[in-house]
Amino acid sequence: MNPIAIEETLKSLVQTLDAIGTFVFALSGAATGVRARLDLFGVLVLSFAAATSGGILRDLLIGAVPPQAIRDWSYLAISIVAGLTTFLFHPKVDRLRTPILVFDAAGLSLFAVSGSQKSLALGMEPVPAMLLGMLTGIGGGIVRDVLANEIPLVLRAEFYAVAALAGAGVVVAGDVYGLPPLGPAIGGALLCFALRLLAIRRGWRLPVATQEEDRARTD
Amino acid sequence: MNPIAIEETLKSLVQTLDAIGTFVFALSGAATGVRARLDLFGVLVLSFAAATSGGILRDLLIGAVPPQAIRDWSYLAISIVAGLTTFLFHPKVDRLRTPILVFDAAGLSLFAVSGSQKSLALGMEPVPAMLLGMLTGIGGGIVRDVLANEIPLVLRAEFYAVAALAGAGVVVAGDVYGLPPLGPAIGGALLCFALRLLAIRRGWRLPVATQEEDRARTD
Amino acid sequence: MNPIAIEETLKSLVQTLDAIGTFVFALSGAATGVRARLDLFGVLVLSFAAATSGGILRDLLIGAVPPQAIRDWSYLAISIVAGLTTFLFHPKVDRLRTPILVFDAAGLSLFAVSGSQKSLALGMEPVPAMLLGMLTGIGGGIVRDVLANEIPLVLRAEFYAVAALAGAGVVVAGDVYGLPPLGPAIGGALLCFALRLLAIRRGWRLPVATQEEDRARTD
Repeated sequence: MNPIAIEETLKSLVQTLDAIGTFVFALSGAATGVRARLDLFGVLVLSFAAATSGGILRDLLIGAVPPQAIRDWSYLAISIVAGLTTFLFHPKVDRLRTPILVFDAAGLSLFAVSGSQKSLALGMEPVPAMLLGMLTGIGGGIVRDVLANEIPLVLRAEFYAVAALAGAGVVVAGDVYGLPPLGPAIGGALLCFALRLLAIRRGWRLPVATQEEDRARTD
Repeated sequence: MNPIAIEETLKSLVQTLDAIGTFVFALSGAATGVRARLDLFGVLVLSFAAATSGGILRDLLIGAVPPQAIRDWSYLAISIVAGLTTFLFHPKVDRLRTPILVFDAAGLSLFAVSGSQKSLALGMEPVPAMLLGMLTGIGGGIVRDVLANEIPLVLRAEFYAVAALAGAGVVVAGDVYGLPPLGPAIGGALLCFALRLLAIRRGWRLPVATQEEDRARTD
Repeated sequence: MNPIAIEETLKSLVQTLDAIGTFVFALSGAATGVRARLDLFGVLVLSFAAATSGGILRDLLIGAVPPQAIRDWSYLAISIVAGLTTFLFHPKVDRLRTPILVFDAAGLSLFAVSGSQKSLALGMEPVPAMLLGMLTGIGGGIVRDVLANEIPLVLRAEFYAVAALAGAGVVVAGDVYGLPPLGPAIGGALLCFALRLLAIRRGWRLPVATQEEDRARTD
């Protein structure tokens, strides 16, 4: 591919990932809102907040203001469609826990990848680009959970931020080694999604600090 | 009116609305703080946070940094006066629920209007200007409630963000149709305030998603 | 000292204070995470958030983007070292309350001082520089506590934001009177730290608004 074709591919790739990520995170926000029995507009606000906060934080941090998600009304439209869909057709509320987790994992993967790509495109160094990719991934879920008055999933969940960091890392590594962007983007998103799903299915956990009673036994 | 007079009117209008909105939101923050039995400085911090967070978020998002509320110490002064007033002369604490809701409604209306006007003045498109007006209105209350460890009123309350959006919409529509700014500003603020008060008085609610037990009955 | 030597001193002083403040606030974040029994990565995220949120907020508000803490990977490295240290070697968990408070007080002092100095260096006026110094000090702890789903220490604690404001005030006063920066920096940090420790030790409290039952007695 010539450089212009690569750039075009990269641009439309970031946009597509961003749109899908927006939709799935908006679903996770709406599902959280329905579970908390918020009214229609509360559900829509939570959809929009979950879908756009990660990208808005990233754009604020790299100085790309006004952020894409405010300037471009398609983010609002996507969030409203996702919110209304969830509101009208959501299944039994008790069954929403698993779809929320799966939507959340998909949004995490797509945003970690698109966030690190956008940061690289705006000239960030590798380590900041990884951090910003991770933040783009985890920011929406953090704001969603803080608004719903819960400890954010990212702090409680198995391999959450680690998965986002791994996905962003694949993208950044691909860039450092000069690979065409499509492969690392797909690889990074799949790695992040797989890590998160496996962590949920298998109950993988990172270690928790030993407490006094645990120590007493080894002494 | 000639264009310069219009611009002057608009500028002093935005400033006046902002000052009044700052005062009433600071009252709502202070009342929340008193109700939570915070000490004097906690009450003042919550006053300032409730009064300025919406405008600070808007300024960050449109790239107007340092934000007005940080650069201009009158916001701090207004917040302190409102906080001290509430602290010293607040009525029976149990009676604070209603004034908090009314102050909050007034602040919401004034900020939704001033926020959309400022965004238009800085060249934002209509839809982003409406969103930023809504955010200016709801941002302070969101930060106030998150700091007080409560689910934000905007997600729980009747017609909250809808009212802010309607008020901002009147301002933006006035701008799109080239009306002089004073009328739409007053109309937008009154519409938002009236919607919010009616919602509180009449207990208007947006629909809540049907749950399994509700469905069972219609099946 | 000639002006260049002063500037060099100021610059390395700000950097050193920032590094130490980052470390101690990261310790406070990690200790909060361990106490909440978060897993390893949750503890590291809370370390990084507590250590950098104040400075990131300040940098966003003064338009210094991308913020230092994102651009410069040493903040991440310091946070990880502090987080791992706490995770591996933390003492009895019940005993963590006091160290958290002391680390938090040290971080508050160092960030209030470095935050106001950076704001002055970027041309902010005295009152905004004091506010931004205070915010740099209290921002990390606010984000840490909001993420851990607690009412922030700054709203509950004795003389918290007052102490940060006093420390920042000494730095700003030194600047207004043209003193060399080292003295006011040390003085401001010590004043803030001493106020906070005394407030903790002696149980100093600012007044809480009188409630109805208190009034009844004086009437």
